[in-house]
Amino acid sequence: MDDTPISGAVSRVHAPLLAVRIAGTATVAPGPAISTAEVARRVTPARDAAEIAERTGIASRYFVTAGVSAAEVGAEALRRALAAARLRPEALSRIVFVSSLGGDLLFPATANLVAAALGLAGTCDCFDLNNACLGFLTAFDIAARGIAMGQGPVAIVVVELPSRYITPEDPRPFLVFGDAATAVVLDRGRENEGILGSWLRNDGVAFGNVRLAHPGLTGRSETIRFTASSERMSQEAIEAVRRSTDAVLAQAGLALDDVQWILPHQPNGALLAAITMELAVPPERVVPVVQEFGSVGAASIPLSLDRLRRTRPVRCGDRLLMVGVGAGLSSGAILHQVGE
Amino acid sequence: MDDTPISGAVSRVHAPLLAVRIAGTATVAPGPAISTAEVARRVTPARDAAEIAERTGIASRYFVTAGVSAAEVGAEALRRALAAARLRPEALSRIVFVSSLGGDLLFPATANLVAAALGLAGTCDCFDLNNACLGFLTAFDIAARGIAMGQGPVAIVVVELPSRYITPEDPRPFLVFGDAATAVVLDRGRENEGILGSWLRNDGVAFGNVRLAHPGLTGRSETIRFTASSERMSQEAIEAVRRSTDAVLAQAGLALDDVQWILPHQPNGALLAAITMELAVPPERVVPVVQEFGSVGAASIPLSLDRLRRTRPVRCGDRLLMVGVGAGLSSGAILHQVGE
Repeated sequence: MDDTPISGAVSRVHAPLLAVRIAGTATVAPGPAISTAEVARRVTPARDAAEIAERTGIASRYFVTAGVSAAEVGAEALRRALAAARLRPEALSRIVFVSSLGGDLLFPATANLVAAALGLAGTCDCFDLNNACLGFLTAFDIAARGIAMGQGPVAIVVVELPSRYITPEDPRPFLVFGDAATAVVLDRGRENEGILGSWLRNDGVAFGNVRLAHPGLTGRSETIRFTASSERMSQEAIEAVRRSTDAVLAQAGLALDDVQWILPHQPNGALLAAITMELAVPPERVVPVVQEFGSVGAASIPLSLDRLRRTRPVRCGDRLLMVGVGAGLSSGAILHQVGE
Repeated sequence: MDDTPISGAVSRVHAPLLAVRIAGTATVAPGPAISTAEVARRVTPARDAAEIAERTGIASRYFVTAGVSAAEVGAEALRRALAAARLRPEALSRIVFVSSLGGDLLFPATANLVAAALGLAGTCDCFDLNNACLGFLTAFDIAARGIAMGQGPVAIVVVELPSRYITPEDPRPFLVFGDAATAVVLDRGRENEGILGSWLRNDGVAFGNVRLAHPGLTGRSETIRFTASSERMSQEAIEAVRRSTDAVLAQAGLALDDVQWILPHQPNGALLAAITMELAVPPERVVPVVQEFGSVGAASIPLSLDRLRRTRPVRCGDRLLMVGVGAGLSSGAILHQVGE
């Protein structure tokens, strides 16, 4: 290897590390919208809705309709993402079902139920993946490496239904979590299209400050628990986002000014604002979704990605920074360059 | 692409599709051995131990010691596999934790607890993966594609502790399942070393005949249930193994005679015998583990792989066929060529 530094003008066209295209995205709200006034009323003692909305930055969230499965809403999101990608379900080589909560059953993988809803019987493989709030980025990395090595289109279906695991008796999770289903279809990248950098890390020693015990082991019904203060969690999240952003930009040899769209994980409005401030990016380069959806775990980044593609003028050559942090402690970033 | 068939002598050296090396493997029995006489005695009415051993082909199994976690035994298997690979834990780029049963908690991913047990704090990423009994092959495919695209060593840690989800009240699962932890470390392949073919499929419509409901959704303690006859399950499994074997051999342009070692999923002794007969391979090319371990889900193939490497004369150029089937319905095969 020649390690002489390249001198002269730096080229603005970056060759992707992994040639992959975001072919289609979609989001499904899996049930009715629930206002912050409504959740504030349900907790005891009832809280002031305006104050909760102000403090969390969450105006509403969706709670899944009783009896509706994760596979059902995931399959609907996937149908819409495939339509956006102009692909038939049979074109998929793989479906990755991402959830922090164990899906609709422990085994077989819930991914099979998503495949079944689309009538897929042996045309692709599928499996379930869990990396808490970072699950989507983990799946994106896996899918991109597979496609770069010759696989056909890969679908990532992220379904988080935390409303099943929160109660008004524990207000802190109850006031922030919401449900969402999103799907992203990835396909082979065209020229100069794909991942410029991917930096994913878990810190098992830190482990993280939010967890859901396994009711099959405890023998009790379990709910999502925060185990640290908001301040501590915010600080950890901001540090992780900073570290991941710096690492992925260094991989790509780019600065944050070279990135048009910033898609951070959005666990609450205050943290989104703090991350935006920490990275010193103009708010118009961020796509907020937490106000409407609440804290939706691993669905947060793909939801924001879907909203970006539907509502903002994304252009060829634009770069997207997807950066997240979650329990585990999991953190990381993927830097993607958009093609034609 | 030139689609003129290649004529003349077929080269016996096959270039791997994905350059990857099986650098180290290990197995941990997570608790004491339980004889078939013991499980036969626990069910009501008590069964004849000799008849059960004859019918299942299972003489013993290990049940995890109370209070021992999946992460603990997984970490021990990983330590031993790293030692076999002569790698330090910090050399890993990724840990994939595979289980059909949801690990030690729902989130964060149990993989983080494995990483923590090895003192890993931010040197790699990790996540949990579930594809029922096919999970190891799914993880192997993902790891190989990642390594082929430049990642460092990847560890696959498979822990199945089904003894937590079976009771003597439902004898069919109780008499066959056992616990196991295995780890496999993959690294960059050397010349002519790696995957010659990988063919993985799920049939969501068929779904499969064994399942474990999610106790977080049903609000009950749940156990593993068979939902079809043994005959039906055997027939499905044999067909899936045949189909997967044919597909992966076709990918590689090889015949089964070109494959030195056959490592099928081993849900019970009778099915292992039936698969061996269906493929018409000499028994000495198969590495039985089900007699000692029972039905260990996704740990079955890596356990057999570990036993192969420790007890048989595996030579450079040897080819291994790993072929499996599981709930989902998941099925598939990976054909691997061993290097120096």
